[in-house]
Amino acid sequence: MEAVRTSTVRRRVQRWQQGRCRWADDVLVTEEPLEIRLRPAGQADPVRVAVTMRTPGHDFELAGGFLFTEGLLDDPHQIQAITYCTDPDVDGDQQYNIVNVWLRPGVTVEPRALQRNFYTTSSCGVCGKASLEAIHSRGACVLPQSQEAMVRPEVLATLGETLRRQQALFDRTGGLHAAALFDLDGRLLALREDVGRHNATDKLIGHFFLQGRTPLAGTILMVSGRASFEIVQKAVVAGIPVVVAVSAPSSLACDAAREFGLTLIGFARGDRFNVYTGAARVGQPASTPGEAGGRTG
Amino acid sequence: MEAVRTSTVRRRVQRWQQGRCRWADDVLVTEEPLEIRLRPAGQADPVRVAVTMRTPGHDFELAGGFLFTEGLLDDPHQIQAITYCTDPDVDGDQQYNIVNVWLRPGVTVEPRALQRNFYTTSSCGVCGKASLEAIHSRGACVLPQSQEAMVRPEVLATLGETLRRQQALFDRTGGLHAAALFDLDGRLLALREDVGRHNATDKLIGHFFLQGRTPLAGTILMVSGRASFEIVQKAVVAGIPVVVAVSAPSSLACDAAREFGLTLIGFARGDRFNVYTGAARVGQPASTPGEAGGRTG
Repeated sequence: MEAVRTSTVRRRVQRWQQGRCRWADDVLVTEEPLEIRLRPAGQADPVRVAVTMRTPGHDFELAGGFLFTEGLLDDPHQIQAITYCTDPDVDGDQQYNIVNVWLRPGVTVEPRALQRNFYTTSSCGVCGKASLEAIHSRGACVLPQSQEAMVRPEVLATLGETLRRQQALFDRTGGLHAAALFDLDGRLLALREDVGRHNATDKLIGHFFLQGRTPLAGTILMVSGRASFEIVQKAVVAGIPVVVAVSAPSSLACDAAREFGLTLIGFARGDRFNVYTGAARVGQPASTPGEAGGRTG
Repeated sequence: MEAVRTSTVRRRVQRWQQGRCRWADDVLVTEEPLEIRLRPAGQADPVRVAVTMRTPGHDFELAGGFLFTEGLLDDPHQIQAITYCTDPDVDGDQQYNIVNVWLRPGVTVEPRALQRNFYTTSSCGVCGKASLEAIHSRGACVLPQSQEAMVRPEVLATLGETLRRQQALFDRTGGLHAAALFDLDGRLLALREDVGRHNATDKLIGHFFLQGRTPLAGTILMVSGRASFEIVQKAVVAGIPVVVAVSAPSSLACDAAREFGLTLIGFARGDRFNVYTGAARVGQPASTPGEAGGRTG
């Protein structure tokens, strides 16, 4: 098997219908592991941060976004360079599956932050509350409830269609998740796709982080699937005030959104959607602030 | 915020439609962290294996299934007991989010196996091929291509409907993934749900592992979403010969299925489905072995 560097691959499949089958070509989304390595200045050994199963493409944005939303980096200037692995000891097939993030001299990373699967300590604990505290410990702030982040219902009603139209350009596999950033007028700013929702979100946020464009005030994050705690956590760290999911949010996603003043919208299908938290941002900028417009009782 | 021990929670939401909104009750799937701890006999300190965001319920099966499919345990008799945390130092709210898996005297766990995110070493590498080798290193075998595992197209056509009907009993949230095990005649053996697909699969496999019923020869695993590499990996370790996904498989899921002789079916919607690997198992047991029946060209 060769290393796969494209986001889709073609395979022969047996296509069954009504008890009969024929051979056909099918396009599959590529899934390959990516290892993210931190390279502190003056340190020979890499710090292996994570291996994620991802769709190749925008790998540097994925690495940057992951390190940012996981709280390991908070400023793109901490990064000297991002490269694929060029270690001659590493097989050529694998070099595109290892990304090195080289840090500037003097930039250090808190070792505890590396233990992302172990944000649990005896002093912290394992529960939803501790998970919310872990977001605070990443330096995330409660989002300001400013008038500028008001989003109009008729804008929200257009996002899903834009997402589907744009995604159709890329997704011929039926297997890709999308994360897209919009401004408050519903203009698409960027879209990223991946076999994993969290990776798509990290690629998208990483795109803006590496350009020094975070926090992303006055924007809307839309994800193609469900809204989990981790999606909301990433939005909070990036300063995105509104998250819209095509499908359902989880309980802890709502708790995190409420805790950090984020507007969380689920089941967004055309002009129908549910506002789970931060309803004050949904309505007309000119209408009563702090209250959603159009209420019918 | 209280510890949540139920699989759903009720919340007030603003439901928008055609530019107007009203308040309504909504049911959300619960998402809470679960820490899995190994407790080797005679060792005071727990070994923290993983924290996963899961839906409460069947937590012991989740822990058992995770340890089995990740290659840390291979026999239920290695387990002395599974308990929630009863450490008085741990806040009562959190005790139901920590599961201790107590090992029998003499049972040890390979430390390298704990580094699941780092199955990459200089001798192994980071690529799809290395990911497949990692399954081999978990002691998984290539599945036998026996006649007994033949599955009829008309049986495959019924699974999705059974899954949806059974899931509807539990899923009032729109946010739950399901994993179900069927026999080759399409009879449902067990179904588990979770906010995460991998957790639902671990709960399901853990149910059978803890009863000493693995390997699961002559069964079909159906998952409600996509088939990732990790889903196929878990099926291979559990000896499940057929995996059916409602949505798309990834490239590496197909590679893993082919490598281990597993039949992988995607886009299973009624009598329509695609067979990606192991097509020889699809057809009539009485028809030509090694070739799928009903081909029309």
